[in-house]
Amino acid sequence: MTSGTPELSRSSCKVAALAGGVGGARLAGGLAQVLQPENLTVIVNTGDDFEHLGLKICPDLDTVCYTLAGLANPVTGWGRSGDTWQALETLSRLGGPSWFRLGDHDLGLHLERTRRLRAGETLSQVTRHFCQSFGIQAQVLPMSDDLVATWVHSDAGTLAFQDYFVRRKCQPRVSGFFFEGAENAQPAPGVLEAVAGADLVVLCPSNPWVSLDPILAVPGVRAAVQRRPCVGVSPIIGGKTIKGPAAKMFTELGLESSALSVASHYQDLLMGFVIDQTDQALSGAIAALGMAVCATDTIMNTPQKRAWLAKEVIEFSLALVGKPSSTQTAEEENRSAAKHR
Amino acid sequence: MTSGTPELSRSSCKVAALAGGVGGARLAGGLAQVLQPENLTVIVNTGDDFEHLGLKICPDLDTVCYTLAGLANPVTGWGRSGDTWQALETLSRLGGPSWFRLGDHDLGLHLERTRRLRAGETLSQVTRHFCQSFGIQAQVLPMSDDLVATWVHSDAGTLAFQDYFVRRKCQPRVSGFFFEGAENAQPAPGVLEAVAGADLVVLCPSNPWVSLDPILAVPGVRAAVQRRPCVGVSPIIGGKTIKGPAAKMFTELGLESSALSVASHYQDLLMGFVIDQTDQALSGAIAALGMAVCATDTIMNTPQKRAWLAKEVIEFSLALVGKPSSTQTAEEENRSAAKHR
Repeated sequence: MTSGTPELSRSSCKVAALAGGVGGARLAGGLAQVLQPENLTVIVNTGDDFEHLGLKICPDLDTVCYTLAGLANPVTGWGRSGDTWQALETLSRLGGPSWFRLGDHDLGLHLERTRRLRAGETLSQVTRHFCQSFGIQAQVLPMSDDLVATWVHSDAGTLAFQDYFVRRKCQPRVSGFFFEGAENAQPAPGVLEAVAGADLVVLCPSNPWVSLDPILAVPGVRAAVQRRPCVGVSPIIGGKTIKGPAAKMFTELGLESSALSVASHYQDLLMGFVIDQTDQALSGAIAALGMAVCATDTIMNTPQKRAWLAKEVIEFSLALVGKPSSTQTAEEENRSAAKHR
Repeated sequence: MTSGTPELSRSSCKVAALAGGVGGARLAGGLAQVLQPENLTVIVNTGDDFEHLGLKICPDLDTVCYTLAGLANPVTGWGRSGDTWQALETLSRLGGPSWFRLGDHDLGLHLERTRRLRAGETLSQVTRHFCQSFGIQAQVLPMSDDLVATWVHSDAGTLAFQDYFVRRKCQPRVSGFFFEGAENAQPAPGVLEAVAGADLVVLCPSNPWVSLDPILAVPGVRAAVQRRPCVGVSPIIGGKTIKGPAAKMFTELGLESSALSVASHYQDLLMGFVIDQTDQALSGAIAALGMAVCATDTIMNTPQKRAWLAKEVIEFSLALVGKPSSTQTAEEENRSAAKHR
C-alpha cells in the first residue's frame, strides 16, 4: 500500500472507480487513458440490469465496456457506434416491444451474455471475457454477481428501473428508491479487494440515487470505501445534468438540485469533490461539509476532455492524500479552478 | 366439397400443400400466385425447429413465410433478402456459436416469436400473427403446436437435425430418421380440416425424409391425405437436388437417388407425380407404381417459374381428379412435358 506516501504519483496510483452509465463511463474512459491500465478497476452498477426479450441486459456494464473499448456511440453515450436497427425494426413490425432500443451489434452481445449465464458462468466471468475480447485492459467488475434490482417509488407506483427510465422516460415524480436483493448480495469477486487496494476511490459523475447508491448498498462496499481516500465528481452542473434524471430526482425528493446536494449525499465518503467551474460559487458551502473542492471544466464531450478531467481528478486527489481535506484553502480551490478556464 | 365435380377449376380449387424448406416454400409461393389466397393452406414441417441462443427457431416456417411475403433471400432461399449480420458478427467476436447463421432482421422475428411463445401463445397463433403482419393472405400452419424433433441416425451417431444439417453440413452418412414426440403430437388447429377440405393435396418438392415425413408422422395427417386427391413434385432432378441432402440421403439409405424413388416413397398417397423433363425416361416406371406422371420444367429459379410450375401442377391435377390415375396415357404425359420445353 503506497497511499499517503510521498512517492505516490499518477503513474503508480491505483484507482477504484465507481460508475453507472454514460457520465461514469466517460470518466472511466478518461481514467483508462491517464492511468496504467492495471491500476484501474471500474466497479459498475448492475441495479439497472433486467431481462428483456429473454435476454439479460446490463446497461451500465455495457456502456462502460463500450466506452473503454472505444465502441460507444458518441452521440447517445449508450449503445454501439454505427450500430444498426434491423432486428428491432422487424420486432416492431411484428408487434413486439420496441421501447428498449437494442441495436444489432448490441443484441449480439446480449445474446452471448445470456447464453453464457445460462451455461453457468457468473456475470463477472462473462464481463471479464467480454473485456478480453474487446481489448479492454482496465479491470471492469459488476458490483455483484447476485441479482440486485433498483425499484423507483413514484407517483405512478413502484416501478422497475427500466420501466421508469426508458419506457416512461423518467416522467413520474420519484419519492424514493429500493435496491431489491442488495442486502443479501455479495460483492463480485475482486470488488472489495480493488477498493481496499486502491490509493484512491473515485465516485464518477453518475446518478447518486440510482447508479452509485446501488453499488454502495452492496454489503461491505460502503465500509470499504470509507476506509480509503475518496473523491467524487459532481454529475450536476449549474443545477442540471448532462444526461439523465439526477437533477429532477433531487428536486422531486425535496432537495436542491446542485453539486452541493451531491457532495452532501456522499459526505461520509468524500475527502474531495470536483465540481464544474460554473458552480464555483458553491465551493465554500461544499468545503464547509469537510471536504476539499476543485472547481474546473467537467464537461467530457471529447475523449481528450475525458482524459483531461481524469488527470485533473487524479492530481487534485494526489495533492490531498495524507492531508486533512478541511485544510485546503480557498486559494488552492480558486487556483485549481482558474487554471483551466 | 367440390372435388371431382366437373366445374372444379383453378380459380375455385382448394389446395393443402405440405412443405418443408426452400423447394417447398418456392412451390408454395407459386401456388399463392395462381390460386385464390383463401384457397391455399400451406402445412409446414416443424421437425427442424430448435432452440438456439435461447430463441425458438423454426427454419421451415420462416422460409415459407419469408417466401410468401416476398422477403426471402433469393440467393440462399432461406433468411431475409438484404439482411445484415451485425449481431452474429459481435456474437462471434465474443466467442459465441456462429454456426447457425442468423441475420439481424431474422433475429428480430426469432426474438418476437420466442417472447410470444413464452407469454403463452401457441406456434399457430404466433404464425398467424406474423403472416398478418407480413401481409400473407394464404393460410400457413405449422404441422403441430407440439414439439416434434427430427433426429438423424448416422455414422456420427444420432444427431439433432440442425447439428446434422447446418453444423455438420450433412456430411455424416445417414441410416435413418426419428421424429421424437411425433406419436403424441396433435396436428395444429386447422391442419386436418385443411386437408379434409382440400380439392387437392400437394406434396411440395421438399426432402421426403426430413421435411415431409415429419408432417405425415403427425397422427391423423397421413390418413387425411390418403383420403384426398394428392399429387407430388419431385425434389430430385436428374438424380440430384437443387438444394439440400435428399439425393445423398436416398443413396446412403441404399436407394437409388431418383424421382422414381421419391414416387415410390409416397406411393400410398399419390395419384399423380410431377417430375422434371430431364427425368422423362422415368415416366413409365413411375406410372407403373399406379400414378399419373407429368414431366415438365420444375426448376423454380424465378418467381415467374414458380407460378408457372404451380399452374402446371394444378392443371395436371385437375385433369386427373375423378379419373383413375393409371388411365393417363403416355401421350398425355408427353404432351404435358413437351408443351414447355
